[in-house]
Amino acid sequence: MGGARVSSVIFYFDFSSPFAYLGSTQIERVAAAAGATVSWRPLLLGGLFRAIGTPDVPLFAMSEPRRRYQARDLAHWADHLRVPFRWPSRFPIRTAFALRLALASGEALVPLSHALYRAAWADDRDLADRTVLGEIAASLGLDAPALLRASEEPAIKQRLRDLTDEAARSGVFGVPSFLVGEELFFGQDRLEFVADALRRLPSETAGD
Amino acid sequence: MGGARVSSVIFYFDFSSPFAYLGSTQIERVAAAAGATVSWRPLLLGGLFRAIGTPDVPLFAMSEPRRRYQARDLAHWADHLRVPFRWPSRFPIRTAFALRLALASGEALVPLSHALYRAAWADDRDLADRTVLGEIAASLGLDAPALLRASEEPAIKQRLRDLTDEAARSGVFGVPSFLVGEELFFGQDRLEFVADALRRLPSETAGD
Repeated sequence: MGGARVSSVIFYFDFSSPFAYLGSTQIERVAAAAGATVSWRPLLLGGLFRAIGTPDVPLFAMSEPRRRYQARDLAHWADHLRVPFRWPSRFPIRTAFALRLALASGEALVPLSHALYRAAWADDRDLADRTVLGEIAASLGLDAPALLRASEEPAIKQRLRDLTDEAARSGVFGVPSFLVGEELFFGQDRLEFVADALRRLPSETAGD
Repeated sequence: MGGARVSSVIFYFDFSSPFAYLGSTQIERVAAAAGATVSWRPLLLGGLFRAIGTPDVPLFAMSEPRRRYQARDLAHWADHLRVPFRWPSRFPIRTAFALRLALASGEALVPLSHALYRAAWADDRDLADRTVLGEIAASLGLDAPALLRASEEPAIKQRLRDLTDEAARSGVFGVPSFLVGEELFFGQDRLEFVADALRRLPSETAGD
């Protein structure tokens, strides 16, 4: 006998993107309101950009007026969403280790990702610093030394590369991205479309 | 004696942008709902891009997955706004003459601009063709031959260049852009922010 399956959205993220941070603060609420669940999928944005031929740091490739606007737009969105936001003293942020830490944390992926996003984009902490990462993991009651060791394992490194490749194959070209069924949405400013798509998704029923 | 002044939004546009077309279909409604008026300001996007160092056709500079997404995003927005939309058979669209025609039309600027946008982005008509432009002007009851002649006058050509320069000085880097007081917004997907800004704008009172 099959049962009704709950609809779901895949959330593609890297801690390096402030817009993905904003998206991360909203996606659980948006999905819950549509009766859906969220699958969090880390990826290495630099690797994705190299795979599809995008400048490493798109912000640096923008015209000066556009770059200035982008900063105001971010502040505007943080304000609109009532989310703490502060441009970090180091940018771009090196996030490979933090992403592997999140992956290695298994069931703690979501709370740990929230904590890492806040550390990077509200509290100006350095995600490239293992001491900082250990403190954040420990603050959630996780076994920080074990997690830091696990983050160095070849299998975890490979998993992050695989997730990045999988995202590229799904048409992802930046973060935050959201996949609902076959429909891809890009940007924290498309969350209403994500909500619409989740509500439109036919309730799937698994066969027996 | 001074009187209360109505708040106003400047709408920067070029017929060459499909997102500006979408914005053009909404801005009057958004402004009216906030008790504000709209000042339509044509500009030559190619000239603006050259002035600030942006690729001539940003779409062509995007990665292939992003370009594909952009097309879907446009269709999605047209659907969301219930606006007819069809990708034109010629792209990019050469719009200098159409923009000068709109400028030359004086008080008919807004209705003529709506008609030109529809012609380009819903009906696949060629805005670089003077016969097409004449037909569109005539369909609005305008004196098409006189308007076409006026569009060639040096003063009108200069006015379009001046408006483009003025936009660049106001921080505009693309269209659609919206200026409310000192606040600039970019994109048809920021119209809610435009509405908020119009409502926030203090009622100015002119001194005597």
